[in-house]
Amino acid sequence: MNIEKLGYKLPQAPKPAAVYVPAVRVGDIIYVSGQTPKEDNELLYKGKLGKDFTVDEGYEAARICILRALSAVEAEIENLDKIKRIVKLTGYVNSTDDFEEQSKVINGASELLEEIFGEKGKHARVAVGTNSLPGNAAVEIELIVQVVNY
Amino acid sequence: MNIEKLGYKLPQAPKPAAVYVPAVRVGDIIYVSGQTPKEDNELLYKGKLGKDFTVDEGYEAARICILRALSAVEAEIENLDKIKRIVKLTGYVNSTDDFEEQSKVINGASELLEEIFGEKGKHARVAVGTNSLPGNAAVEIELIVQVVNY
Amino acid sequence: MNIEKLGYKLPQAPKPAAVYVPAVRVGDIIYVSGQTPKEDNELLYKGKLGKDFTVDEGYEAARICILRALSAVEAEIENLDKIKRIVKLTGYVNSTDDFEEQSKVINGASELLEEIFGEKGKHARVAVGTNSLPGNAAVEIELIVQVVNY
Repeated sequence: MNIEKLGYKLPQAPKPAAVYVPAVRVGDIIYVSGQTPKEDNELLYKGKLGKDFTVDEGYEAARICILRALSAVEAEIENLDKIKRIVKLTGYVNSTDDFEEQSKVINGASELLEEIFGEKGKHARVAVGTNSLPGNAAVEIELIVQVVNY
Repeated sequence: MNIEKLGYKLPQAPKPAAVYVPAVRVGDIIYVSGQTPKEDNELLYKGKLGKDFTVDEGYEAARICILRALSAVEAEIENLDKIKRIVKLTGYVNSTDDFEEQSKVINGASELLEEIFGEKGKHARVAVGTNSLPGNAAVEIELIVQVVNY
Repeated sequence: MNIEKLGYKLPQAPKPAAVYVPAVRVGDIIYVSGQTPKEDNELLYKGKLGKDFTVDEGYEAARICILRALSAVEAEIENLDKIKRIVKLTGYVNSTDDFEEQSKVINGASELLEEIFGEKGKHARVAVGTNSLPGNAAVEIELIVQVVNY
């Protein structure tokens, strides 16, 4: 798989919480739960864009969310080569009321997906701001992925 | 169906508004419109978490949203036993800028789904904050459900 | 197609950005990226409901988002007659903390879809507020559409 060659290392897969799971597969579609920029269950970016973090820092936070989302997919399908298409990404950016650069922040997620998956990584996208996220995470990202039939 | 045995009573199904419908089925997937904590069209929880409501009150509001969402599903498929899997839940919590406990609020929805549906109730989940919701609802919840073919 | 008879003109299709695409098709489902009220890449409504725009202006902004979303669908399937059902609409309204009329704003999108597509245009819907959107757009709308097999 491309991901290690590119020098990325997937974090530990998100632990299934008591009340929901990191990913659900229905047919060839996998819905991944919203992921925040965590490593080993420690939230690395806590705060708001427009106040606590620069766009570059938000960009990096978005990348970490994606690695964690892919880790959740891998736990479901064992091998990321089975991904046929990254379908849709929704990115929520914890923002001050006047922050307007959510697109540039979420580009951290989109560009990483394209780097890893090439054409298959090109997805539909929604990027929005929000005034608050769980645990004061800077970014939260939700993913829908299509996998090959197997 | 488990739901009555557990002592829950579904509210009146959401009325189809002029311009959109409470649920749309495509194949075996049902998309449920965003539900707020209403009973008989009266909004029971109006205000923001972090200011107007405690986490426990938000938890209760989230439960009411789910009952209303299930009522919309029931109106579509007649019998909730036809639910094969709760696929995804998106929970929007009306929050002050510094409220961080959206996950605990949305647990009210997730735990109720698991209580009613068991393993089939385990879903992918997104929980985010927002600074405002329609009618100043405290919580809004959107659901995607898979049903058995029939 | 109904849309021209009704006097609407689709704007130029959204340009595929470097890192994501305006729409992705998976089977008979098309996921459309979040659209803001742009014409020729100029954002026509920049600001927040509850402060900078009236509900009527927000309603108009929501209509423009939908025309742009349909333009993205048309670029994918060539002819909007191939639309079988508008499945789901998610509307994000850039709002002050005390704005509560998101539903009326997003009705601009929903009513236009019903006007154009009739029964096929009746969709599931989520309408929420947010404290900020990319480029300070007043509204952002995401669409899921089912198309006929072909």
